Amino acid sequence: MLIIGERINATRKRIREAVLDRDAELIRVEARRQVAAGAQMLDCNGGVEGREPECLAWLVTIVQEAVDVPLCLDSADPEALARALPLCRRRPLINSVTDERARLAAVLPLVREHGADVVALCMSEAGTPRGVDDRVATAGRLIEAIAGYGIEPGKIWIDPCVFPISTGAEHGPAVLGAVRRIREIHPGAHTTAGVSNVSFGLPVRKLLNKTFLTMLIGCGLEAAIVDPTEEGLVAGIHAAEALAGRDDYCVAYLEAYRDGTLGAPTAALQAGAAR
Amino acid sequence: MLIIGERINATRKRIREAVLDRDAELIRVEARRQVAAGAQMLDCNGGVEGREPECLAWLVTIVQEAVDVPLCLDSADPEALARALPLCRRRPLINSVTDERARLAAVLPLVREHGADVVALCMSEAGTPRGVDDRVATAGRLIEAIAGYGIEPGKIWIDPCVFPISTGAEHGPAVLGAVRRIREIHPGAHTTAGVSNVSFGLPVRKLLNKTFLTMLIGCGLEAAIVDPTEEGLVAGIHAAEALAGRDDYCVAYLEAYRDGTLGAPTAALQAGAAR
Repeated sequence: MLIIGERINATRKRIREAVLDRDAELIRVEARRQVAAGAQMLDCNGGVEGREPECLAWLVTIVQEAVDVPLCLDSADPEALARALPLCRRRPLINSVTDERARLAAVLPLVREHGADVVALCMSEAGTPRGVDDRVATAGRLIEAIAGYGIEPGKIWIDPCVFPISTGAEHGPAVLGAVRRIREIHPGAHTTAGVSNVSFGLPVRKLLNKTFLTMLIGCGLEAAIVDPTEEGLVAGIHAAEALAGRDDYCVAYLEAYRDGTLGAPTAALQAGAAR
Repeated sequence: MLIIGERINATRKRIREAVLDRDAELIRVEARRQVAAGAQMLDCNGGVEGREPECLAWLVTIVQEAVDVPLCLDSADPEALARALPLCRRRPLINSVTDERARLAAVLPLVREHGADVVALCMSEAGTPRGVDDRVATAGRLIEAIAGYGIEPGKIWIDPCVFPISTGAEHGPAVLGAVRRIREIHPGAHTTAGVSNVSFGLPVRKLLNKTFLTMLIGCGLEAAIVDPTEEGLVAGIHAAEALAGRDDYCVAYLEAYRDGTLGAPTAALQAGAAR
């Protein structure tokens, strides 16, 4: 399971201010915190109106000063990507393209040129997807269109497009079913999801986020854009991976237990003793 | 989601002693605690060697003094069932039969006579199941055999038979896949699972139990035999139900939030304010 940390995103007020003020230390702290919590890749979103190319390039430079993980360049702006891509020390993931000819034509030559991976979001000219079939059809078209640019399926990460369940009970099963079907039909491509969107508008969001993520792992999801610092999220991933048959002899689960990732056993015992 | 509380089980030392000592108050406390935590049905296991019929009957009487929920009679002993069934005030669930002719012939006439529901565990004369196909085939044979006794599919709860993942990484996916397939093939029957077995032999069992349960809900599981007092388990059920599209407008989720079942919202708000 590839854990992509979502916190360095300029649509969040605190990050936006840090980007505008060039507060490098705040960004470095966010980068280190996420990697310490279990992120294996960090999303960087420098989406400040009119200044995205310089802001994304600055973020990439600063984050790489702090941590040594590949980056997920969260931008649909070809100019921002063209400027950020050459700065990446490790193979990046570009997030994202949709099934829209103009966006594919603007971004995929850059993906190809830099040997990057790409997130293919199940949205099309017709707009946002509605159910399982719609998502599966869009995924198929996207894989074909991306292949047309000489990019192999193994570099494609299909994102089924997660909507808030507060806006419709059908959105959860649609994404779960789509991940399962896309994995069956396109075993050569990968799947990812921006999980946190599912809980928008509801209380105790972290409970919904971690629960949805474990359900998605049960459907075969291979990567997720999440906040790894949310309580219990990475522990839930370790449990779900073992339960989904992806962790032979529970080696990773037991290692996570020993290093305290599953909830500090010592702290729990101390709390018990103090009661 | 039908939550069946598993704690009143004489294979547990504390319960066994209470049953042998006729410690009614301890049993009543266990019954009330589980219902307060969210159990909608209570499993009663009076499996004390040579004394099961009197012990199960005693448990049924005592538990019904404390709470008003239907009971799950956890016994394969026809004599114990024959004695306990007439004592049940609400329609009970009998746990369980397997695909073994002698066991079916001994138990199903009682199920029929008392209008009970029955758990059909995916085990056969050949022993324990190995993968998805094996479980699905056994489920089909069980539904057919039980129908032969005049019991309709709507009263049958298929249990795919959960094994500890510590004994094989394949056991998790086998159960997840079986629940999904059995729901597709036999939509008229129900599914249930004894979830806690999955974590046997591993640390932080409650994390594995609640994670597996939410993954199973994503596959369509309709009931589970669990310990509802385990931290986060019932909260996880509420989240998973909403995410699986079974909770229109998140009504049950929001109600659980307001009554504190999802974790104390006040404490979370205070922690947020302190940041």
